[in-house]
Amino acid sequence: MPHSEAGVKTPPPRWTRFSNGRIVRGKELIAQDLWIDTQSGRICEPPTGQDSHDDVDVVDLEGKIMAPGFIDIQINGAFGFDFSDSSCISAPKKFQKGLHDLNQRLLETGTTSYLPTMTSQFAKTYHHALPFLGPTGIHRDPSRGAESLGAHCEGPFFAHTQKGCHKPEAILAYSTSEPELLKEVYGEQNLAASQGDGTGNVRMITLAPERAGALDSIKTFSEQGIIMSIGHTAATYAEAVKGVQAGSRTVTHLYNAMNQLHHREPGIFGLIASSKDRVFDERTDLADDGRPYFGIIADGIHLHPSSLRLAYNAHPEGLILITDAVMFMGMEDGTYEWTNGQRTVKKGLTLQLEETNTLAGSAIDLPSCINNLIRWTGCSVPEALQAVTSTPAALLGLDGIKGGTEPGADADLVILTEEKDARGFTSLDVSEVWKFGKCVYGRGR
Amino acid sequence: MPHSEAGVKTPPPRWTRFSNGRIVRGKELIAQDLWIDTQSGRICEPPTGQDSHDDVDVVDLEGKIMAPGFIDIQINGAFGFDFSDSSCISAPKKFQKGLHDLNQRLLETGTTSYLPTMTSQFAKTYHHALPFLGPTGIHRDPSRGAESLGAHCEGPFFAHTQKGCHKPEAILAYSTSEPELLKEVYGEQNLAASQGDGTGNVRMITLAPERAGALDSIKTFSEQGIIMSIGHTAATYAEAVKGVQAGSRTVTHLYNAMNQLHHREPGIFGLIASSKDRVFDERTDLADDGRPYFGIIADGIHLHPSSLRLAYNAHPEGLILITDAVMFMGMEDGTYEWTNGQRTVKKGLTLQLEETNTLAGSAIDLPSCINNLIRWTGCSVPEALQAVTSTPAALLGLDGIKGGTEPGADADLVILTEEKDARGFTSLDVSEVWKFGKCVYGRGR
Repeated sequence: MPHSEAGVKTPPPRWTRFSNGRIVRGKELIAQDLWIDTQSGRICEPPTGQDSHDDVDVVDLEGKIMAPGFIDIQINGAFGFDFSDSSCISAPKKFQKGLHDLNQRLLETGTTSYLPTMTSQFAKTYHHALPFLGPTGIHRDPSRGAESLGAHCEGPFFAHTQKGCHKPEAILAYSTSEPELLKEVYGEQNLAASQGDGTGNVRMITLAPERAGALDSIKTFSEQGIIMSIGHTAATYAEAVKGVQAGSRTVTHLYNAMNQLHHREPGIFGLIASSKDRVFDERTDLADDGRPYFGIIADGIHLHPSSLRLAYNAHPEGLILITDAVMFMGMEDGTYEWTNGQRTVKKGLTLQLEETNTLAGSAIDLPSCINNLIRWTGCSVPEALQAVTSTPAALLGLDGIKGGTEPGADADLVILTEEKDARGFTSLDVSEVWKFGKCVYGRGR
Repeated sequence: MPHSEAGVKTPPPRWTRFSNGRIVRGKELIAQDLWIDTQSGRICEPPTGQDSHDDVDVVDLEGKIMAPGFIDIQINGAFGFDFSDSSCISAPKKFQKGLHDLNQRLLETGTTSYLPTMTSQFAKTYHHALPFLGPTGIHRDPSRGAESLGAHCEGPFFAHTQKGCHKPEAILAYSTSEPELLKEVYGEQNLAASQGDGTGNVRMITLAPERAGALDSIKTFSEQGIIMSIGHTAATYAEAVKGVQAGSRTVTHLYNAMNQLHHREPGIFGLIASSKDRVFDERTDLADDGRPYFGIIADGIHLHPSSLRLAYNAHPEGLILITDAVMFMGMEDGTYEWTNGQRTVKKGLTLQLEETNTLAGSAIDLPSCINNLIRWTGCSVPEALQAVTSTPAALLGLDGIKGGTEPGADADLVILTEEKDARGFTSLDVSEVWKFGKCVYGRGR
């Protein structure tokens, strides 16, 4: 905060102008100034008039890349905090403090907004945790750190054969998925619209579309604006198509916690490889319902790089990079207690339930996922960045607000340095992060 | 053959000029005349001088498409004849007659050259059959019908878990795959170069790269000019990469008779999704060896359409449409004896071993495969035609000779009509076929 010589606070300059950078705009990097209106916290058109010369803070980007802030639609925790931690019941202040600290730390990774993601829990935990995890953007307050866009409830309405590392008791407690049951488990008040823009505490739900009542829930809640994602599922292709037709618009961590691709029964992969302008089989086709988006964990552990490449080539504009990080992301290697009731071993980026080879979420951050996507697919830098900016924003219905650099969008921005490794592969590194028009993280500041 | 008024034979015009058509050239359809030199049987530059006006037969293509003749690198038989029929031992004249008749009938499907493909047999059958199945192009004789480019030996050096519908005894008879053993089984004279262009009776061998001695065989025979294809295999990704590094340049019917894609162990699919300019893992990468070509059975029975679309999007320039047809292609529905010693039930395009659900080859023809590729992927007509012309020609080292319409190439040509179905999908139909510069099949001629 600038001070006058007499120590009296003066307001910050009205505008910030970023010059000498490469701005991400869709699939392009453009050499153009980017202006922020610091009062609204939004990107703006270059101002006209005298003020625009005097009341401006100019930031020299020194050739760096300026991208929209990253959006992570699936993150279970990080830096020692877990969104499903039972302290939400027993010690809500501790929970709130943990959440606050995480929101500060998350900025380091370029993540300016995200869906705090809860693993499968019993009703009581949802009822206590979800009110903390709802959207925070209404405050437009950079000091809060990374912004919640609403919670992602991953489970417990899963195929019993596709539990992954989630708490088995919570999943096995329910075998149907009717809307009434979901309201009971998550809390009806958490599903209802509570914000001015019609969103509530819950922004996304991952469930298996083949369970009794699931299609009804997909229809009910998607009409209400909640993103219904297909995941932890044993659905056949035909069952998955029904999920999309009922309103599901995305798939949770493609490849993980679902049936393998079989060449005659493609399952979920049939959705990704489908096309609304192609007809495979009139009984089971997506037709005009279109292909869903899909999350991908690009850590090289959950998937072989060639699996990522297959999916990206099939539907590049659908791919959303997610960390699926758990609380151990950013922590030292070791063996830890986790909220699923089991012990988890962290070794580098690999997390496994102790004495098993079940993967227990990931420990990767979004910049590393972006670098892997570039390295493994050969896509361009702005194409890779779309998978953490404009693509998740489009899924969430936030085009023009998040995930872009057009005037009018929130000034959530990441400044990236670009380096080449010995083999010539591009590597991006987060240098500075801005939230609602203010610099909230800067290396060396 | 034109006759003079007195009944004395006159030579045919020196040139044929096709006008008013759309010529396939790479990924384009071009409006340009195509000239054939009827003496050489090759496509030629437009001739100059007086002769070129007088000594020309002009064919009006009436807006139809003119494509290179189709190449099928995997076809086990058709129209009641099987390339592995034991009559090659007991009744060679009958075998030869059956082969001759098939070569005439195959023209109806636009197939002007192919690799007659033998299923897994014992040595005696190879020794007797292969001399009949070697290359026939040296004669440049259109009256012989479809041209063999040399035999494809599919088996018996397979993973014992990936026998498909092949004769189990022949596969189980061998558990290693050294060069000496291959020479013994196929007959050394069939593997040796016997033609002016260095090819011998055997042009391609499908084997599993993970068996003992297989890499040695891949290296030995690929250096000799034989195409070594990976197939009927249980290879991991790392084993498959070794196969490519040893010299394998293609994959036999991708998806069928191999492990399913697993997202952490992609197996053969890792080859297709790899890229020589990407690095997944330095221990197991293809690096500069490049991605192999791959055959695909586009009948909608061996694969779900979305599986085809996944593979095509991953590596479009690698996809080769194959029929994998067996002798029942073009025959009535019913239950038949087959050369694998078992009975086969044909119902429409589906062929299964009796009382099992094991697929027993296909009954589809190449034009139907092309139409399915267009319908399922949305590729253009010339892109689809590449999968049966320039792509297999490139694999076989026949660029400029087969699979193209450039001057100098053999005048093996297919004239296609293009129709749109009720949904607007393109459907191609073979209207006329030319071989070595002569019309050998014409609807209504």
